[in-house]
Amino acid sequence: MKKIINAPEAFVDEFVEGILAAHPDLVKTPGDDIRVLVRADAPRPGRVGIVTGGGSGHLPLFKGYVGMGLCSGVAIGNVFSSPSSEQIFEATKAVNGGAGVLYLYGNYGGDVLNFDLAADLADLEDIATRTVVGRDDVASQPNERKLDRRGVAGIIFAYKAAGAAAERGDSLEEVVSITEDVVEHTATMGIGLAPTILPTTGKPSFELGDGEMEIGIGIHGEPGSRRGPLETADEIADHVLAALVEDLGLKAGARVAVMVNGLGATPLEELYVLYRRAHQILSGLGIEISKNYVGEYATSLEMAGASISLLELNDDRLALLEAPAKSPFFQEG
Amino acid sequence: MKKIINAPEAFVDEFVEGILAAHPDLVKTPGDDIRVLVRADAPRPGRVGIVTGGGSGHLPLFKGYVGMGLCSGVAIGNVFSSPSSEQIFEATKAVNGGAGVLYLYGNYGGDVLNFDLAADLADLEDIATRTVVGRDDVASQPNERKLDRRGVAGIIFAYKAAGAAAERGDSLEEVVSITEDVVEHTATMGIGLAPTILPTTGKPSFELGDGEMEIGIGIHGEPGSRRGPLETADEIADHVLAALVEDLGLKAGARVAVMVNGLGATPLEELYVLYRRAHQILSGLGIEISKNYVGEYATSLEMAGASISLLELNDDRLALLEAPAKSPFFQEG
Repeated sequence: MKKIINAPEAFVDEFVEGILAAHPDLVKTPGDDIRVLVRADAPRPGRVGIVTGGGSGHLPLFKGYVGMGLCSGVAIGNVFSSPSSEQIFEATKAVNGGAGVLYLYGNYGGDVLNFDLAADLADLEDIATRTVVGRDDVASQPNERKLDRRGVAGIIFAYKAAGAAAERGDSLEEVVSITEDVVEHTATMGIGLAPTILPTTGKPSFELGDGEMEIGIGIHGEPGSRRGPLETADEIADHVLAALVEDLGLKAGARVAVMVNGLGATPLEELYVLYRRAHQILSGLGIEISKNYVGEYATSLEMAGASISLLELNDDRLALLEAPAKSPFFQEG
Repeated sequence: MKKIINAPEAFVDEFVEGILAAHPDLVKTPGDDIRVLVRADAPRPGRVGIVTGGGSGHLPLFKGYVGMGLCSGVAIGNVFSSPSSEQIFEATKAVNGGAGVLYLYGNYGGDVLNFDLAADLADLEDIATRTVVGRDDVASQPNERKLDRRGVAGIIFAYKAAGAAAERGDSLEEVVSITEDVVEHTATMGIGLAPTILPTTGKPSFELGDGEMEIGIGIHGEPGSRRGPLETADEIADHVLAALVEDLGLKAGARVAVMVNGLGATPLEELYVLYRRAHQILSGLGIEISKNYVGEYATSLEMAGASISLLELNDDRLALLEAPAKSPFFQEG
């Protein structure tokens, strides 16, 4: 795979420089490390701060969700590598408005370690932190071990809800409770058709035969629930939706938000072919789609594939999704 | 290249069904042909209608730019094929609010033929139409023959300006004049790294060797100005920007809008690496970037590559870009 880059080791810093050059009205670096980024009006006195982060290579995740009604700050590492605890702590200090800081990120070992270390550093400076991890990938663990699942695109729902709650002035405990509630009602499954090539090593993120697909693939190419011949869009949607509906225990009369997310190289047209079928399936089950998102929300560089996420809605969760938000890559209202 | 589709011949209708299912608040089909789509509140009495269209496979182009402050209607054909004159005429009737209709589309033979035929049909029903074609691809013809250039991603600037003018109630002649002015000051150049595979034939849209790139490539894979070894992101940006700045005759003190557009498979990270360099180059020349767009605005299915567009700004053009707009894939304000 050919890439439009300069030196591979400069890739992360250079795309962040591009983001900063393009969006100085929305985001800023609080210090010397450009991989730490906060919303332009941070810190906001009396408001809960929300810090996210993770490896690079997933745009719009993570850098793209810092702004009004979303996250307050972010720290990113190298491609598919955790940011350091120092970087997370720097973001924490920069967004701390005295009401505490929520750490909200995907459930991966390196990220958990470094966010926990950052929480210790914050504690030493009397900044209260709490943690909620995205854990929506139903293929990564069965329902009985759902707390151990990986976090994937469904975290966008959690960002949106947490950001809306923080924006209106909810306390740290309230923001945690709202965010946990959204995470608890979110489920995602992905399918992979072709890997990305890692810029520094030139190696594919996973191997897959001609004509094969991986159902339940993770956002870094982690193995899914099964591998088999490439299916039609409708068959894929059928399998994915069946798993999500079962996992969330959705019944007729339920309301959901649906996200059909492209993993990088898959055309928007194909995402709409998937959405078409998701809409048919859910309608057939008597489940109402109250909100939909079709596009690239959490990618894996130029990986080919897609994921579908469902968030079961009630009035509160829908209102949180519909609250205004604006970041470099996301706008509501 | 593996695709998430059902029967290849159903691809276009199925992704349009997905768009209609996802965005019933923004767009509707005026008749039985779902490839003809208009904004949900069409026709708007006393307002100029704007109809665009072209081949499928370029989302968000063309379907994605129908909405408030943008186009009023669209007709699309098969992948990379023109819509029929009957489809364009159907869109024309559906958006006609009595103030005339602007046809605004990219300069390709089939599209010109069919839009001209639709204009004849409209004339028979006393609907006044005028035509402006996007012709921003500087690599397709030299400056002396700029009227013959192909239209590529720069048409988004024209949509935005024409839509803002029509929204505020400008006459058909005024909308035409404003749109021509924007087209006249727009220039684009693309680079291709890997082709798309056409869904129905399974054939690549063009051939390119390992380690090769095509500078000046068209949005369907048309040959560019030269082919050579893959360059770094900075070298690519240097060559493209030099061509655009020369073509538009930009001098220190000029103001521009910049669009870095992904052609499908190229990650957002790489687009920001290009934007970073574009920002450096233009700043170095004393040219101010007053507005920027980085993302996928006009694609070619899963083609790898990018284009850069410049629109030279004055106060009027900047105000038109900044006017509110909302469609399934584009929002301003």
